[in-house]
Amino acid sequence: MEFSVKPEPGHAGLTREMFGLDQDGKDTQICVVEERPLTIYLNGQEIVTVMTIRDYPEYLALGYLLNQHMLLPNDHVTGVDYDEDIETIVVRTERKTNYEKKLRKKTLTSGCAQGTVFGDLMEHIDGVELPTEAVLKTSWLFALSRKINTQPSLYLTAGAIHGCVLCEADRPLIYMEDVGRHNAIDKIAGYMLQNSLTSKGKIIYTTGRLTSEMVLKTVQMRIPVLISRSGFTAWGVELAQRTGLTLIGRAKGKRFIALAGQERIRFDSETP
Amino acid sequence: MEFSVKPEPGHAGLTREMFGLDQDGKDTQICVVEERPLTIYLNGQEIVTVMTIRDYPEYLALGYLLNQHMLLPNDHVTGVDYDEDIETIVVRTERKTNYEKKLRKKTLTSGCAQGTVFGDLMEHIDGVELPTEAVLKTSWLFALSRKINTQPSLYLTAGAIHGCVLCEADRPLIYMEDVGRHNAIDKIAGYMLQNSLTSKGKIIYTTGRLTSEMVLKTVQMRIPVLISRSGFTAWGVELAQRTGLTLIGRAKGKRFIALAGQERIRFDSETP
Repeated sequence: MEFSVKPEPGHAGLTREMFGLDQDGKDTQICVVEERPLTIYLNGQEIVTVMTIRDYPEYLALGYLLNQHMLLPNDHVTGVDYDEDIETIVVRTERKTNYEKKLRKKTLTSGCAQGTVFGDLMEHIDGVELPTEAVLKTSWLFALSRKINTQPSLYLTAGAIHGCVLCEADRPLIYMEDVGRHNAIDKIAGYMLQNSLTSKGKIIYTTGRLTSEMVLKTVQMRIPVLISRSGFTAWGVELAQRTGLTLIGRAKGKRFIALAGQERIRFDSETP
Repeated sequence: MEFSVKPEPGHAGLTREMFGLDQDGKDTQICVVEERPLTIYLNGQEIVTVMTIRDYPEYLALGYLLNQHMLLPNDHVTGVDYDEDIETIVVRTERKTNYEKKLRKKTLTSGCAQGTVFGDLMEHIDGVELPTEAVLKTSWLFALSRKINTQPSLYLTAGAIHGCVLCEADRPLIYMEDVGRHNAIDKIAGYMLQNSLTSKGKIIYTTGRLTSEMVLKTVQMRIPVLISRSGFTAWGVELAQRTGLTLIGRAKGKRFIALAGQERIRFDSETP
């Protein structure tokens, strides 16, 4: 089973035709991706306003809160109420939450899109152990790149968008897009929580750069392999090395570079 | 005079050689851009931690605070103290500042990199009037694209980086890069403040996407033309139309698309 969630570039409200001029002064028309604010509340508390395409607001809110450690993996979520008109979403939990203090300390990361990490950036990943038995076959990697890059998407339709894909072996499962790649990975985290999907055997593919926060989010989602067709930052690589994440960048066609966790890679493909 | 500030890809500390494996399992080496936290203080108050390459921390801090309206254009800056060891920078002003309340309300934008706008996103630009007499010749645009894209840069050396360039007519003046394009444009704002550069006749060129916040920052810097080789979001376009900014995207070779402020464009180039 592949792409049980995939981009729906034709879905109403995700893109808009806009009219302008081209280089010759001629009228032209272009398909542009939407970008709207969404304010996320946790119980009574306003947490953050993110810019998003708003295709899966529930997954985004849940995944965002989870990846910020404001929602705990065993929290009982009693409701997720999305109100499109006033551009808000409220996540309710049985546990009483109060993140006033946490909200004051924030780090803006170099991620595309939102990318704020509240405070304790490293605190939560130091104890994480990524499975050592997980492997990545190069044949899977090449198959994933091909399947993902040829799948109809908002990126192919309108550009100016990032994607993250949850994969297993050579199969892309959940493909999320957003104006920011952090939203895209948060939506995957929210989907996994809501559908009780485990991280076992999973791989994340992203179209965006491998910066510190993408590495941290992948690690705290307990997923041992992160692949991108884009490049690295040095701190992203350092964090991957420190946490034992397999980090692969510049994956294009049958090429790639692995800068951390190389021991998981099985070279089973013929390369030219 | 062109490129009075330009990227210095060979500068120590901006990139690092890292070692890994390629697709054939062979040892390989790659130049990767640095990404480090920098915590910005305004007087006694911690404002934010941004991820940055840290080449112009003073301009970044000044421009960030200015673009967040925490530093006012006529504030008297009494000191900018950068401490590399503890990764902090303190901007001091004669005026007493207190942004406790402002810091609580934040919007995470779809920009690459930081991109947090504290609260009143729109409030400050509704009164701005961009000069109607400013023009953009297509010959300038094509010359700028060529000069900027062939200038040695961290982007060409290591990738995973964005750039913003302050230009005048067909001349690129100040070329800043960073892991986030918001940092890059903030550094330009800081440079302009510190060097008393006016916005008259200026143009901003960016390598990144034209999202809402890039448009807002350009408008509040009073610069009437924003050009990118990347794409648009619909809200970015709407804001440009509302504020009268000339917004040009997908500028590649001798092609481009203008979606706002087309009346400033002078088509003086032969196109094939």
